[in-house]
Amino acid sequence: MKKHKRIKLGMVGGGHGSFIGIAHRIAAYMTEDYELTGGAFSSDFSGAKDFARGLQLDDKRVYEDVPALIQGESALPLEERMEAVVIVTPNYLHYDAAKALIESGFHVISDKPITISHAEALYLQSMVKKHSVVFCVTHTYTGYPMVRQMKAMIASGVIGEIQKVDAQYYQGWINPVVHSAETRKGIWRLDPEKAGISSCMGDIGVHAFNMIEYTTGLEVKKVLADLHTLYPDNPLDIDGTVLLRLDNDVRGIVRASQVATGEENNLTIAVYGRKGGFRWEQENPNYLYHLKEGEPMQVLKPANPYNSGFSQEATKIAPGHPEGIFDAMGNIYKGAARAIRGEQVAEGAYPDIRDGVRGMNFIEKAVESSKAGNQWLEF
Amino acid sequence: MKKHKRIKLGMVGGGHGSFIGIAHRIAAYMTEDYELTGGAFSSDFSGAKDFARGLQLDDKRVYEDVPALIQGESALPLEERMEAVVIVTPNYLHYDAAKALIESGFHVISDKPITISHAEALYLQSMVKKHSVVFCVTHTYTGYPMVRQMKAMIASGVIGEIQKVDAQYYQGWINPVVHSAETRKGIWRLDPEKAGISSCMGDIGVHAFNMIEYTTGLEVKKVLADLHTLYPDNPLDIDGTVLLRLDNDVRGIVRASQVATGEENNLTIAVYGRKGGFRWEQENPNYLYHLKEGEPMQVLKPANPYNSGFSQEATKIAPGHPEGIFDAMGNIYKGAARAIRGEQVAEGAYPDIRDGVRGMNFIEKAVESSKAGNQWLEF
Amino acid sequence: MKKHKRIKLGMVGGGHGSFIGIAHRIAAYMTEDYELTGGAFSSDFSGAKDFARGLQLDDKRVYEDVPALIQGESALPLEERMEAVVIVTPNYLHYDAAKALIESGFHVISDKPITISHAEALYLQSMVKKHSVVFCVTHTYTGYPMVRQMKAMIASGVIGEIQKVDAQYYQGWINPVVHSAETRKGIWRLDPEKAGISSCMGDIGVHAFNMIEYTTGLEVKKVLADLHTLYPDNPLDIDGTVLLRLDNDVRGIVRASQVATGEENNLTIAVYGRKGGFRWEQENPNYLYHLKEGEPMQVLKPANPYNSGFSQEATKIAPGHPEGIFDAMGNIYKGAARAIRGEQVAEGAYPDIRDGVRGMNFIEKAVESSKAGNQWLEF
Amino acid sequence: MKKHKRIKLGMVGGGHGSFIGIAHRIAAYMTEDYELTGGAFSSDFSGAKDFARGLQLDDKRVYEDVPALIQGESALPLEERMEAVVIVTPNYLHYDAAKALIESGFHVISDKPITISHAEALYLQSMVKKHSVVFCVTHTYTGYPMVRQMKAMIASGVIGEIQKVDAQYYQGWINPVVHSAETRKGIWRLDPEKAGISSCMGDIGVHAFNMIEYTTGLEVKKVLADLHTLYPDNPLDIDGTVLLRLDNDVRGIVRASQVATGEENNLTIAVYGRKGGFRWEQENPNYLYHLKEGEPMQVLKPANPYNSGFSQEATKIAPGHPEGIFDAMGNIYKGAARAIRGEQVAEGAYPDIRDGVRGMNFIEKAVESSKAGNQWLEF
Repeated sequence: MKKHKRIKLGMVGGGHGSFIGIAHRIAAYMTEDYELTGGAFSSDFSGAKDFARGLQLDDKRVYEDVPALIQGESALPLEERMEAVVIVTPNYLHYDAAKALIESGFHVISDKPITISHAEALYLQSMVKKHSVVFCVTHTYTGYPMVRQMKAMIASGVIGEIQKVDAQYYQGWINPVVHSAETRKGIWRLDPEKAGISSCMGDIGVHAFNMIEYTTGLEVKKVLADLHTLYPDNPLDIDGTVLLRLDNDVRGIVRASQVATGEENNLTIAVYGRKGGFRWEQENPNYLYHLKEGEPMQVLKPANPYNSGFSQEATKIAPGHPEGIFDAMGNIYKGAARAIRGEQVAEGAYPDIRDGVRGMNFIEKAVESSKAGNQWLEF
Repeated sequence: MKKHKRIKLGMVGGGHGSFIGIAHRIAAYMTEDYELTGGAFSSDFSGAKDFARGLQLDDKRVYEDVPALIQGESALPLEERMEAVVIVTPNYLHYDAAKALIESGFHVISDKPITISHAEALYLQSMVKKHSVVFCVTHTYTGYPMVRQMKAMIASGVIGEIQKVDAQYYQGWINPVVHSAETRKGIWRLDPEKAGISSCMGDIGVHAFNMIEYTTGLEVKKVLADLHTLYPDNPLDIDGTVLLRLDNDVRGIVRASQVATGEENNLTIAVYGRKGGFRWEQENPNYLYHLKEGEPMQVLKPANPYNSGFSQEATKIAPGHPEGIFDAMGNIYKGAARAIRGEQVAEGAYPDIRDGVRGMNFIEKAVESSKAGNQWLEF
Repeated sequence: MKKHKRIKLGMVGGGHGSFIGIAHRIAAYMTEDYELTGGAFSSDFSGAKDFARGLQLDDKRVYEDVPALIQGESALPLEERMEAVVIVTPNYLHYDAAKALIESGFHVISDKPITISHAEALYLQSMVKKHSVVFCVTHTYTGYPMVRQMKAMIASGVIGEIQKVDAQYYQGWINPVVHSAETRKGIWRLDPEKAGISSCMGDIGVHAFNMIEYTTGLEVKKVLADLHTLYPDNPLDIDGTVLLRLDNDVRGIVRASQVATGEENNLTIAVYGRKGGFRWEQENPNYLYHLKEGEPMQVLKPANPYNSGFSQEATKIAPGHPEGIFDAMGNIYKGAARAIRGEQVAEGAYPDIRDGVRGMNFIEKAVESSKAGNQWLEF
Repeated sequence: MKKHKRIKLGMVGGGHGSFIGIAHRIAAYMTEDYELTGGAFSSDFSGAKDFARGLQLDDKRVYEDVPALIQGESALPLEERMEAVVIVTPNYLHYDAAKALIESGFHVISDKPITISHAEALYLQSMVKKHSVVFCVTHTYTGYPMVRQMKAMIASGVIGEIQKVDAQYYQGWINPVVHSAETRKGIWRLDPEKAGISSCMGDIGVHAFNMIEYTTGLEVKKVLADLHTLYPDNPLDIDGTVLLRLDNDVRGIVRASQVATGEENNLTIAVYGRKGGFRWEQENPNYLYHLKEGEPMQVLKPANPYNSGFSQEATKIAPGHPEGIFDAMGNIYKGAARAIRGEQVAEGAYPDIRDGVRGMNFIEKAVESSKAGNQWLEF
């Protein structure tokens, strides 16, 4: 295993008390491909410096904001300069940070959603192309080894031509706070200024959508959505079903809810083809159920030699040792690192700007379809 | 346990090689409430007599057809006469048999669907009322003890006001025969003359629909359906999703497919309320998953004293001894037997004519909605 | 499906309030091979007659006791006479009833254990041979289709030479009543007069033992047992582990407990061979897990054409429709019926006198080994 | 979250191609409590330096062997010096490395087993005490949040007085190579010089043993073992069952196998008490099954507020996001870090020298018992 010089990584957001910041740092550590160098961790600059000291970072690499970071880092010699920057701010700040960083030539790893609108996402896409940077969006679930195995097996024709896809993302977290007008006012996910035009589809439905396109390699062509706010004074959807038409007129469904009381993070996907099918569940990520026409179902598990190389690269230990969500995120960081180093990477090694753009397109079309009385809308 | 005189039971259809006939006989035996007396088992009269001899039935109680059965039995003294008749013919013959039997005062146990059209179902309903007979339709899944437990707990408010329901019925059985124009022509399920206007919704989607209304006690008010024939020369749907609006504007989904390759009989239901939720899966019918807001999930199993009386009556043995689909059907027969004997029965003790009528309504509206370009249609 | 004249069946025990009686009646009805004709249902003769009327049996076929039954039935013409008799009395009465019936030429279906001692079992075995009757012992779990599939696949060498077997039977039912000296005195299972020399091994451990011999076709050669009474004043074991040596020096384990608090009927078996292994769980009886060297695990389910004929004969309905414990018992009744009719039956079609004898041997050796300070004892 | 200065960590072993080295590095990174400073990574010194450069370590901190490391580090000023050293060499080298490091005042994190003999383990224990260092042995499975929850709930009396424990560790990895005399000669696990006196008990049985003592807080008092080499020329056990007597005469079982063909890493534990029981499975580590007398089973999952503080500290993300084996190891590193910093740590925060000593005692007694004809031997 040849080791590379570590990629110098900055972070925007992710300071004191940020759980998502910790998740990204762990993902970056795991692969031993990155070295956290500094960042603009918080709008509270003095707090950010304090936080950075806790991570034993050099004070000089802690910046007040993104412009300061860009200016400071750009002034450094190339071999010291940050090469990639992670964006883990609140969602509505993603776009400005990403735009500025890309335009200054930094590779970007952005939390999802990459922007608040499809138009912004398209603009980022054009900038990524123009500046030839790597842009990775952390659709983390694509990093699981059995999701990658599913993608590889579908691509190689194991289940034949696809005839049906169905993805679910059910959570219950908003239930305890949504039923009182008072408490639901305080949820940032339900504030259009901070969350954009959708809560449920924007936060979780889009993951189900992404999993469908990621695993099948098919594109969604049009959607008919039935979204629900539960209360009239709640401006954003917290539940919804979206009917899909994919390439080749394949039918699909995205089902998502934040009021599926008692559910934790119940993301599942089922794909059925002419020769068989697959089922996968995020809360038991190390099992891939392969249904076969006329034969017993097989249960595939990570790290076994019967898996594809693409899946095997996403495991770090022998069969029977469960890997989890941090490992999945680490696999995405690993894919991005390869791209940043200019290596050839397999399709799907990390979710990129195209995933980000399509996700925003999905969210906007779903909301629009639902508001238009459940009409089919083309992408 | 006081034992009653057994109900004299006739059967229409169900002769040589009929698996559904065996299932109904087993269900009837199980409860020790019925005695199979005779029937019109087949259009092949001599075969029917041969078949009946195998069951050691009296030759004189084997009839050529339904009119002959009605005439023959009506001529017998009351205490010898069949009281109830099971209809297990091909679907398109259900209506005529049921109509004649009801109008002659026989109680009827009918396989599903009770008719080919909603109008016929409504007519049967009026006849059932007029002649004061018991009419039971074998929506068998409602006979499982944990389905009954779910119904009882929802009715008693355990999960609070319902906010979401989602039922799935995925099978793959049609996949091996549907892709060739030749073989699919030979499938009776795809022949409108025999199967009516729908294959997937008519055969299995309607079970998912019934499970939703049965367990929640809510009524579906309107539907928007997206059905699929897969091939243009196939006149009937073999896959589809139906969006639902129930009472109180509750959102629901019925998802069904006959091309979910590799699936056997994957019927599931999830119901979420303000205080918790339930999940149940037909292929593991003895587990009821009770999700609770802020508490660990509970797994309820049959025959335990913590279950409701309604569920306990649907088990015959100590905890940990799995009961199956025949036991479920037996529970429905047991409920019908009580009604036939004139006892008070709990709501849901057996699916009745109303379930049959609503099911036909669902099927027709779903097909109509899909053909009308996925419009919402009221029941 | 050619139908045979039904076998006239009598029953000893199983009167008012007997759950095991109901189970046996259902099993007998299911196969349509038997006709319940009469019996000696209870030591309360007038109650027995009342009970029999509830089943609409002929009063003349209800007897005061086994001798009366034998005398009465033997006086009837052959074609009216009971051919087989089910014994479902308390355990300590099994032997006398079986002995008398066999010696009078009746086929016998006996609940387990067939006797209280190995010596008695051996005597019954000699009588069964002498009188050429069919003797079936209801080791019900051997009737499940996936247990039969496991047996068939092991016999055909699918997992190669066996190198390890492990069977568990954990229940918790005795826990609520065993901790008070007062209540445990009242448990008949703990009364040596009624239960014999063992509670845990005699009631459930022996099932685990039987499953090992049934599925593997290997014989246990010696045992080392570690049994536990939990309280010094409790004369019988309520928990224990038994180490096994089988043919070819294969190692095995029987683990059983009646104080595995919260467990219902958790019987499991795992068998490992050179090429793969099997796992099966009684509470989920329709899943057979086939572990394969170097390949993904397969999950086999009943009624699929990939199953052996031996397993397929033990299902009555299409894949995906769960069958349960009554169906399993029905399969055993079906096997016994064939034997009674003089047909050739596959090995394992029903557990026979040999299973009964070996089970009693196991119980005695286990108890003896434990008392002797956990010594190895040969069968 | 106050951040501490990172603990300077060295590593012995774990160079090129060492998977266990990667696992330990990831665990150390995860907690952000450690900084890898250098080590003696390999007996191939030049390879070790090359390897260390790949990790961007300072050449001067790469040592030829443990003595050189001790000498080199001891010469450094206190604030630069390694404080703790991880030992991930082949097993038979653990003792010498640990002994030298402890005697020079370094804290030690050792892979399991800590030594090849109980006597050595006892000596290390005395040295740990004498030199007041922290000694952590990576019984990794104790780091899972639901194992910690189980420990906490048992300690708080939730299931009452314990009456039965049963732990299993079944693997199949040795099956493909053990059946040929040629290939089994080449397995280091079967070479007494490298593996010590036991393969199966020493490698995996001891984990099952440790899990029993860890979760119940009970001590094993004596054992009766039945170990198996499968082939006479194989000097070490590859399968075995060990009967246990714990405190209060509680019965227990350790079952382990390396020839459970097809099994990956199937470690399970079941503990039954007067009021309920627990079941946990390593391959699905995020589910804890809580059996309750008279109530439905509960399924506990990590990160939910209903868990104990001890468990909650072992999760890093919201409910429904699976954590895996690296996270479990990270939790152990976190516990050790606290101890190294001199903080008070909860009992069980990391497995310590006592766990190592008891494990070696277990292995030796099991082997001795089996060789002595399955005698009970006291600890």
